[in-house]
Amino acid sequence: MPVGTQATVKAMTPEELDAAGAQIILGNTYHLYLRPGCDVIGRFDGLHRFMHWDKPILTDSGGFQVFSLAKLRKLAEEGYAFQSHIDGSRHLLTPEKSMEVQICLDSDIIMCLDQCLEHPAAREQAADALALTTRWAQRCKTFWQAQTDCRNHLFGIVQGGMFADLRARSAAEIAAIGFPGYAVGGLSVGEPKELMMEMAAHTLPLLPTDSPRYIMGVGTPEDLVELVALGADMFDCVMPTRNARNGQLFTERGNINICNARYREEEQPPDPDCGCYTCRHYSLAYLRHLYTAREILAYRLNTIHNIHYYVNLVKQMRAAILAETFENFKKDFYRKRQVTSA
Amino acid sequence: MPVGTQATVKAMTPEELDAAGAQIILGNTYHLYLRPGCDVIGRFDGLHRFMHWDKPILTDSGGFQVFSLAKLRKLAEEGYAFQSHIDGSRHLLTPEKSMEVQICLDSDIIMCLDQCLEHPAAREQAADALALTTRWAQRCKTFWQAQTDCRNHLFGIVQGGMFADLRARSAAEIAAIGFPGYAVGGLSVGEPKELMMEMAAHTLPLLPTDSPRYIMGVGTPEDLVELVALGADMFDCVMPTRNARNGQLFTERGNINICNARYREEEQPPDPDCGCYTCRHYSLAYLRHLYTAREILAYRLNTIHNIHYYVNLVKQMRAAILAETFENFKKDFYRKRQVTSA
Repeated sequence: MPVGTQATVKAMTPEELDAAGAQIILGNTYHLYLRPGCDVIGRFDGLHRFMHWDKPILTDSGGFQVFSLAKLRKLAEEGYAFQSHIDGSRHLLTPEKSMEVQICLDSDIIMCLDQCLEHPAAREQAADALALTTRWAQRCKTFWQAQTDCRNHLFGIVQGGMFADLRARSAAEIAAIGFPGYAVGGLSVGEPKELMMEMAAHTLPLLPTDSPRYIMGVGTPEDLVELVALGADMFDCVMPTRNARNGQLFTERGNINICNARYREEEQPPDPDCGCYTCRHYSLAYLRHLYTAREILAYRLNTIHNIHYYVNLVKQMRAAILAETFENFKKDFYRKRQVTSA
Repeated sequence: MPVGTQATVKAMTPEELDAAGAQIILGNTYHLYLRPGCDVIGRFDGLHRFMHWDKPILTDSGGFQVFSLAKLRKLAEEGYAFQSHIDGSRHLLTPEKSMEVQICLDSDIIMCLDQCLEHPAAREQAADALALTTRWAQRCKTFWQAQTDCRNHLFGIVQGGMFADLRARSAAEIAAIGFPGYAVGGLSVGEPKELMMEMAAHTLPLLPTDSPRYIMGVGTPEDLVELVALGADMFDCVMPTRNARNGQLFTERGNINICNARYREEEQPPDPDCGCYTCRHYSLAYLRHLYTAREILAYRLNTIHNIHYYVNLVKQMRAAILAETFENFKKDFYRKRQVTSA
């Protein structure tokens, strides 16, 4: 899922996302709740019409951004009290409030409010956070079930820090409440890559295999390949869009830093085999020029390519799984990515 | 002509310019010569393939930007010696060099190097500048004529400051050299609007009516209507693109400042009668949100609308002239623009 924090996937139109093959995007509840606010988006019956995107949208609960962006946040059983990072205004984000806002946004998939932790976190803190996350998950489900004609699908989130037994406890508790889909939260928060993979490998098999399993906030192309091998079905990450704006292009043959002087006169596109709009019409020399000159079109063309790359990578993995050739795909992926990786 | 300073009309793809009806764009020789440089663009046989735009391009001579941007510029009979505003490197821009660079860019219309003046300029300075501009125009033409298979059309530029007799002298001298088209330079340089119109009204009739007459660097929608009434055929201006990035949208019913709180929940597009991509798919509330959140899509959608407005305005004037209804068009234009002008 490309990330569309503020009701736009940065630099892209919905038509461009569609052309890149995106089937679903992510919106950030914290940002949208603060600006433009639910009253505004509510007038458009939700995010879809407001932002002119008629395919599925998943919104997060708002908890992670309260945790990472808000000022003076205070956690209690009831929820998070916090001040807006934009204007300092005071707000209370409870499980029920998160549901209410996400239902107002009319997201196709809405997420339970969970308690996030800094890394590293002590075992006791992680145990408390997972217990609160379970109680909040029950409150979210109760609120969600009480809605009439609710077309939004509610996903539960597993926490538990970097402790295998706590992950197992959280997965059991969240699965016991029962949701149409499950996410693994609290990964990619600063821990070593090996630890993230260990936790994902441990947690994914504990979740119902007949429901989508979603790893939140991950990751590099290599991360996605490893996690799909472990059974993950869904991802969101700012990497394709943010790195595009920082001049990094992902390709099958490695990553390109568009500032590199070697591309000054290069007539080839980033990837001659790529079918995206950028690779069909523009050279590395032009992309380097635009980026050096800080032109808006640089961010656009880089983003188009990276989203196309990510979406296409996941499409290829899906096809390989269905054709039972995933192991070959994975070998081929690593062989190519190492050729000119820079 | 939308302005594409650095081989891109800011925030736009060529396809979007095409959809807005743009038939020709302007590139800035000074910028392109410094970055990415003629060696790079030359590898692509010019600007068209480099930037993926196959319709006409006009480039200016580079003189105006040397005058307004370069450091430590020094004027002599030979040309401008100057230092790059990017890296301080030293360069010499002569009439011949300007031709050489513009021919390398392979612009469809190339402009003579002229001497620009600050406003206000004393009569003696203005007289000297116009005399030098005439000598440079002759050098440009000589260089241009010496090219074999030169497909680029060279336009002359009239100077003369704010002095009617000097404008007349310059027009006579430039017309006597003879070019496929003529431009009036040195307007919109800080003088009062009435003085600009007076100078344009005085100068335009002195230029051959069977050639295109181009007013450089102008202006507002009202300026364009007045100048077309005076016989002007071509314009370039950063106003539609720059003002878009500053949150100002032009419409038939006046200008819109997208930050205005009155648009917070407004479901209408900027102009319900406008056929541009922005007006067909987005509300003022969404555009205000994007702009407030400083999203790249804000600059894109505003620019699409403004270029569509400007191109359409000129199209309407052309149709009115052909239908011999220009005076009615003009009355109607002013009647509507005053309704909600803000």
